[in-house]
Amino acid sequence: MIVGAGFGGLFAAQALARAPADVTIVDRHNYHLFQPLLYQVATAGLPPSDVAWPIRSILRRQRNATVLLGEVTGVDRAKRVVLVGEAELPFDYLVVATGSTHSYFGHDEWRPFAPGLKSIDDATAIRGRILHAFEAAEMESDAAKRALLLRFVIVGAGPTGVELAGTIAELARFTLAADFRRSDPRSAKIVLVEAGPRVLASFAERQSAYAQRALEKLGVEVRVGATVTGCDSGGVWLGGERIASATVIWAAGVAAAPAGKWLAAQTDRAGRVLVAPDLSIPEDPTVFVVGDAASVVTAGGGRVPGVAPAAKQQGRYVARVITARMHGAAAPAAFVYVNAGSLATIGRKCAVIEFPFVTLRGWLAWWLWGIAHIYFLVGVPSPIVVSLRWLWEYLTYGRGARLITGQEHAD
Amino acid sequence: MIVGAGFGGLFAAQALARAPADVTIVDRHNYHLFQPLLYQVATAGLPPSDVAWPIRSILRRQRNATVLLGEVTGVDRAKRVVLVGEAELPFDYLVVATGSTHSYFGHDEWRPFAPGLKSIDDATAIRGRILHAFEAAEMESDAAKRALLLRFVIVGAGPTGVELAGTIAELARFTLAADFRRSDPRSAKIVLVEAGPRVLASFAERQSAYAQRALEKLGVEVRVGATVTGCDSGGVWLGGERIASATVIWAAGVAAAPAGKWLAAQTDRAGRVLVAPDLSIPEDPTVFVVGDAASVVTAGGGRVPGVAPAAKQQGRYVARVITARMHGAAAPAAFVYVNAGSLATIGRKCAVIEFPFVTLRGWLAWWLWGIAHIYFLVGVPSPIVVSLRWLWEYLTYGRGARLITGQEHAD
Repeated sequence: MIVGAGFGGLFAAQALARAPADVTIVDRHNYHLFQPLLYQVATAGLPPSDVAWPIRSILRRQRNATVLLGEVTGVDRAKRVVLVGEAELPFDYLVVATGSTHSYFGHDEWRPFAPGLKSIDDATAIRGRILHAFEAAEMESDAAKRALLLRFVIVGAGPTGVELAGTIAELARFTLAADFRRSDPRSAKIVLVEAGPRVLASFAERQSAYAQRALEKLGVEVRVGATVTGCDSGGVWLGGERIASATVIWAAGVAAAPAGKWLAAQTDRAGRVLVAPDLSIPEDPTVFVVGDAASVVTAGGGRVPGVAPAAKQQGRYVARVITARMHGAAAPAAFVYVNAGSLATIGRKCAVIEFPFVTLRGWLAWWLWGIAHIYFLVGVPSPIVVSLRWLWEYLTYGRGARLITGQEHAD
Repeated sequence: MIVGAGFGGLFAAQALARAPADVTIVDRHNYHLFQPLLYQVATAGLPPSDVAWPIRSILRRQRNATVLLGEVTGVDRAKRVVLVGEAELPFDYLVVATGSTHSYFGHDEWRPFAPGLKSIDDATAIRGRILHAFEAAEMESDAAKRALLLRFVIVGAGPTGVELAGTIAELARFTLAADFRRSDPRSAKIVLVEAGPRVLASFAERQSAYAQRALEKLGVEVRVGATVTGCDSGGVWLGGERIASATVIWAAGVAAAPAGKWLAAQTDRAGRVLVAPDLSIPEDPTVFVVGDAASVVTAGGGRVPGVAPAAKQQGRYVARVITARMHGAAAPAAFVYVNAGSLATIGRKCAVIEFPFVTLRGWLAWWLWGIAHIYFLVGVPSPIVVSLRWLWEYLTYGRGARLITGQEHAD
């Protein structure tokens, strides 16, 4: 039984294809989401259908795999079942891969004003807010109100925040520049707020500095050492300073999904489940937690980062452990994370990729980033086709992605 | 001032590109929708981004065109302004092209249980309900409940209803057949309910019979002469007979948008505004109504049908009338509708096209239908690219279109 069809869960399922097992994977959405590109949907660069694919389609040919759509509400380890509402799904081995979401640092009341970016619906809602802001500015005759509508605040300067800030800046400066007659999208102000001392804190200092320069060249105002103390429909407060904005996006903090509570297992401060070297929980060797929901400590003592490649490696590793147990073979050695590098893009032509011993910046990095994304495509039926579509939309400022749908429009 | 960016409004705007005028087009959505293919989005065959394009993009290069996003709330003919909330948009000439929606024949309370299909949000909501029904059936152990989940009712057998019924049947029989393990999508029952004596009532009898046979070959149960007398969350009532179903889709009746009320003009029973031979309203020769919102009577006495080609012709015609007046030239002759034929598809390989003197059926008709759709693409930047994408998705049962998004999933 696998809970969650993100990188961790889906790669685990696929790696169990030849195991003598019945694999059931449950997710509350019917699609696998390629999260690294979700910010593109949020900034109207790609449509949802290019970054998400039905789990059923991906696992269609895997005979031992069953896919269920459902919201897991708990786990009964005594009865050895996963609870989906009233239904009880039995398991011999359980892999929890439920991921993580943003943290509002105790201020969940800010969520309606500053949405996060974790699902397709999050992305289309943010897309609607961004595009709607430009539309409202077009209709607005009051200059002060128009400035408020054309100011965008992103909270959190990790890769997601940096990517959002860079692409919104490009949207305003290039993509939408000629689309409006009464207002000027190029006058939009994008503010990236980070509580820590630098952007891309998980990268080396040189990369942080490079990324900040690249953002500022795009016209983004970068505010480090600035903590959000208040957030409402009119903007944010940084201590005593008010930044008025109609659109605030939250890309900060980490809070793991409630796996720890379900499993009655020990977690760290962010809710990530503490796991053994073989990624099982100390309380029960047949229950595993992988990906963002787990806190995995490497031999060196550091924590494995919550990135897609780590989840993928852990998913596959767990499948090997389970398969070995089923065959009565020797258990594999403890999990080792192979650092696949950290990636972040700043706009269309610029990226930062950091490997343990080598760093790449600029245009070359952007191309490599593109290829790396293709590599991480989960058994998608036509990875070449998907990649070509991404490239096409990216290069031609794909128009179909710029729809305002859902409740966020003038209807 | 043009209200509405469907076929009527958009073609009018484009035809005024060289007129000595400032053209402002207002729509409550930011996209132009290719309505003939909306049923494909509703049945998870195409993603929204392939059937809708931002109006701004389409009119980007038209110097005299301004696009506004807004919900028109009324028209003040005395002051000669269009009201969008508190804003007043002045006009010298007004073209109302607000289209039509479905009618529940006095039973608007049925709407939440039987959604109609007019906008992208309608389509993705219906798509979610359809896909969700199959997902719920997979989790359902009770055979009776599963049968209810796998029964789909479509009300109204005009082209939209016929197209929906045919494609849902194909979805169940082919596209999803191998995707589920516990339930069998091929056991799904699709029921098409029509109050009149035959399907495709606006076509000749031979075509109706052909379409009905084609539907039945796909496994659709066709019920003509059956009027819906009740509708709730568990299905519909046809007089004393109950058809239990978890998914009812409404594709019947016509109700024009409230243009008549705004203009204080005379309308017919369905709310369509009665217009003069030059498509202006008798009450005011500078105000025109085109498309589904208008009731246009041809010289022969019949009413021009509410189809896309008619709206397109009327939009262009009105632009000619306005341009002639601006130049002080002689007014064009009365509007004449050139019958571009009626089209309906039944599934992937089968269509009916009826011209005044010639009829096409089957596979050849399907190809011609495809080409006709391409022809009607409104100045889309790359009609060839769009057509290739449609063809690609259609032939490969495009997976990306099968996402469940919005409030209609297990979240």
